Amino acid sequence: MSTALERVRAAYARVARVDRPEVWIDLRPQEDAEAEAAAVDARTAAGERLPLAGTVLAVKGNIDVAGFPTTAGCPSYAYLPEADAPAVARLRAAGAVVLGTTNLDQFATGLVGTRSPYGAVRDAVDPAYVSGGSSSGSAVAVALGLVDLALGTDTAGSGRVPAAFNGVVGLKPTPGLVPTEGVVPACASLDCVTVFARTLPEAGQALSFMAAPAEPAAVPARRPGPWRIAVPDAPQLGELDEGWAEAFEAAAARLADAGAELLPVDLEPFTEAAAMLYEGAFVAERYAAVGAFVDAHAGSPDLDPTVAGIIAGARDVPAHRLCADRERLTSLRARALASLGDADALLLPTAPGHPTLAEVAADPLGANARLGRFTNSTNLFGLAAVAVPAGEVAGRPFGVMLIGPAHTDERLARIAGALTAPPLHLAVVGAHLTGQPLDGQLLALGGRFVRTTTTASAYRLYALDTTPPKPGLVRVREGGAAIEAEVWRLPAEGLGALVAALPRPMTLGSVELADGACVPGFLCEPGALDGAREITAYGGWRAALASLARPVEAGHALPRE
Amino acid sequence: MSTALERVRAAYARVARVDRPEVWIDLRPQEDAEAEAAAVDARTAAGERLPLAGTVLAVKGNIDVAGFPTTAGCPSYAYLPEADAPAVARLRAAGAVVLGTTNLDQFATGLVGTRSPYGAVRDAVDPAYVSGGSSSGSAVAVALGLVDLALGTDTAGSGRVPAAFNGVVGLKPTPGLVPTEGVVPACASLDCVTVFARTLPEAGQALSFMAAPAEPAAVPARRPGPWRIAVPDAPQLGELDEGWAEAFEAAAARLADAGAELLPVDLEPFTEAAAMLYEGAFVAERYAAVGAFVDAHAGSPDLDPTVAGIIAGARDVPAHRLCADRERLTSLRARALASLGDADALLLPTAPGHPTLAEVAADPLGANARLGRFTNSTNLFGLAAVAVPAGEVAGRPFGVMLIGPAHTDERLARIAGALTAPPLHLAVVGAHLTGQPLDGQLLALGGRFVRTTTTASAYRLYALDTTPPKPGLVRVREGGAAIEAEVWRLPAEGLGALVAALPRPMTLGSVELADGACVPGFLCEPGALDGAREITAYGGWRAALASLARPVEAGHALPRE
Repeated sequence: MSTALERVRAAYARVARVDRPEVWIDLRPQEDAEAEAAAVDARTAAGERLPLAGTVLAVKGNIDVAGFPTTAGCPSYAYLPEADAPAVARLRAAGAVVLGTTNLDQFATGLVGTRSPYGAVRDAVDPAYVSGGSSSGSAVAVALGLVDLALGTDTAGSGRVPAAFNGVVGLKPTPGLVPTEGVVPACASLDCVTVFARTLPEAGQALSFMAAPAEPAAVPARRPGPWRIAVPDAPQLGELDEGWAEAFEAAAARLADAGAELLPVDLEPFTEAAAMLYEGAFVAERYAAVGAFVDAHAGSPDLDPTVAGIIAGARDVPAHRLCADRERLTSLRARALASLGDADALLLPTAPGHPTLAEVAADPLGANARLGRFTNSTNLFGLAAVAVPAGEVAGRPFGVMLIGPAHTDERLARIAGALTAPPLHLAVVGAHLTGQPLDGQLLALGGRFVRTTTTASAYRLYALDTTPPKPGLVRVREGGAAIEAEVWRLPAEGLGALVAALPRPMTLGSVELADGACVPGFLCEPGALDGAREITAYGGWRAALASLARPVEAGHALPRE
Repeated sequence: MSTALERVRAAYARVARVDRPEVWIDLRPQEDAEAEAAAVDARTAAGERLPLAGTVLAVKGNIDVAGFPTTAGCPSYAYLPEADAPAVARLRAAGAVVLGTTNLDQFATGLVGTRSPYGAVRDAVDPAYVSGGSSSGSAVAVALGLVDLALGTDTAGSGRVPAAFNGVVGLKPTPGLVPTEGVVPACASLDCVTVFARTLPEAGQALSFMAAPAEPAAVPARRPGPWRIAVPDAPQLGELDEGWAEAFEAAAARLADAGAELLPVDLEPFTEAAAMLYEGAFVAERYAAVGAFVDAHAGSPDLDPTVAGIIAGARDVPAHRLCADRERLTSLRARALASLGDADALLLPTAPGHPTLAEVAADPLGANARLGRFTNSTNLFGLAAVAVPAGEVAGRPFGVMLIGPAHTDERLARIAGALTAPPLHLAVVGAHLTGQPLDGQLLALGGRFVRTTTTASAYRLYALDTTPPKPGLVRVREGGAAIEAEVWRLPAEGLGALVAALPRPMTLGSVELADGACVPGFLCEPGALDGAREITAYGGWRAALASLARPVEAGHALPRE
């Protein structure tokens, strides 16, 4: 593994290459970060065990990091915290190095990523689109590979919507699992600290450090059987961007392929509660948090006009409405949990669509309200959630969300894993054929024999000049033949391990089979053909070995060039 | 995915190719299995949801499968059960198809796999070695890819030791989690039904069906922080086979690399309890189970002499000794749990060594007793365990075990996952370079930029005749140069997904870097060089693109052949 210093330097190298200044509110001076990284390396060298040594971390601008101003996206609101927020402190104590604080929708009020005097954050994949928010900079920093981990916050969906738009994992823990001390409140009773990462294990490991429940909570037991996933039907999802309904169905189908049982669910209590978050009285919590400041700075260019309007507008919400809303929420929550029944999780698109910067500029409130349709109710109901990438639509990431009962965070991540790595196929033509010396290697990698077939009639087979002789499969424009092949099924991770163990001159590429399907298969480097002898005529490796084993009597010996 | 019928046919094709008759006690007639598979396909076609449709299953010969004699490895003991054991029934109800019943150490009394009148079961990887037992046939059937899943039982370690010797996953659930109804008892108070699979997810999914705790049990909460793994020091492990101590250290180091914290532990209460299993009074339970039968058939060739001796020898164990042993066990358990403290798991080699068939024949009792040193105490203490492959020593699998508190089965599997898939490196020279069109693809696969370097001076770079032009990196014997490259870090599963998405004529193979290290990297098929133009002189893809973008003024345009 690289040292912390090397990893931090690599991070700054990426930051320089990737021109996305709006990601950062305070990008740390490189020499400071390198000094902290060097200190981490020194502690490691001294024998200290630092599980996150060299992990490069970005922190959303509404979370305290000692030495960086906490701005919450508003320059004049900034204060200089003396200590890290506990979530940050735990990661740094384990060896993570902070690269800087990231841009956000001001006061974490928004799901778009454009509501900031520090600039609108552009999507990592297509800059014409919004990054999503409010944890905009953190999600983009992870998506662009600038950092390994980034902290966000999530009240209405700020830790999930930008994860979906930028194609990364967003872990939204059970409310209360991660302390919110040192975080500028949005709605204090609902805020969660979240983590963005590129893979589930990285996000899960980070959470294992940040989690510190007030009282230890046990994980609810589940009824035996397959994972049970509640999946709403298309009409309940309402209008989605083009192609998203199909992508959502594909994600549900992948869970079913992985053995999950799909259950119907009534989404109505979820969407009803979602609407309450901004339309209802809960917005008064935002006024309680920063209303006085917003009033005092009315008209200041530091304030995002949309955000200021939302917060100031909550000044006169009467308390009795908040009480009424809480009552209504209690009954909606009961209905929601009843409709989930004994499902392990609810599968939803993370957002109903992905707007462009122009669309959000044209309708700041409408575009934003639509984005929270599926995320707004999660914290109101006290549930856990994880947002994961689930393919692409029109070249941009599509994401889904698994929402589950409080304290099923580990279980949700495990189920989400089934969405990420479907088994893959592999074509083998030589030593990996059943009964040949290396088929055990495929078995050890989790492989499973599927069927015997041949390649398309466009290949030649060579016995390479290696010891032991290896088969060289080569695609040719004419004069090819069908070569005996076996198709195996491997977990994606097993195929990756196979690549890592591949000895020169063997390679893996796309091989066309007799039925026209193309699957990864063994090929070879161009240079490997020097001194090789062609054995295409035998129709396959097994037949060639059998004949070549008795070259004289069979007269099959081919002259070596 | 293949149909159930296709998968069952493929399984019989493997069985035929792999000459291991001793694996089976009753291999099901192919037409029966195919009929059941066809029925599964029909139910699926009719819209029924069968999460395990087509999963090929083998069942240890001491577990009831309707229609197959339950032999427990003793022909004259056989009875014909009317119903499947619940564990079997749950998997079949979900679509699994039983291929047959497997060989075992008679009455599940042994850890070697040789104590059976149906023949000694040879190791899947090296037939000169024992398979381990008592679930010998089940572990080998999975290891050879004859079946997807196999059920075993585990009292002293019968579901784990053979997993280690054959390089597969062995899940030993919390005692009581899977019903033992329909299982011939070994020690009724300790027996567990276990599952063998080639990957953790497959084993975990099977367990999700089989688990049916008498009362729902909640998972113990854990103290926040990294995974905490108790790891005994070398002296406590005692004598291991050559190279196994190093392999064990490597496994512990991999957990540490994955962020786990390694803690010291006092192994003594575990090993003390382990010795009690056969030396103590617990063996009386075996007599209670099948002693009368063994006495009645003394001297019969159906009885394995070693097994018969152990069971008959327990006839005269006085009850007061059993009471005393139970008391002693209670205090040992308290000491063991205290020494684990708040560790999430205890890491151990699954066995201290792997004997040959000859070594076991020479000393049946001694060799067997040694094998249980690390596994014997797990069920006595009521703990959960998972055995996973952890590399090879001298060409044979080496396995480790994670043992944890009752009902942490899911957590143990999650920690074990960290042992199976370390991140891999990838060298890129073209469109995947930072800032080039495809670096987003690596990010989406969980990749991370590590550093910029060059290849060894043994490569030539070509602009392939594709649209858009792709780089073709070719290793040459002379006249090569160092080509600009970036090294990225990818999860194994991400690398596998990359291979699956690789478009012809690109391939992945082993690329030598400037520092002599070889990592997987992008190469191309031999045929791809037709019509390609060499751009080695530019030193890299970026430089070539820059120059070729303005061919005329720079005069860099190369004639197309």
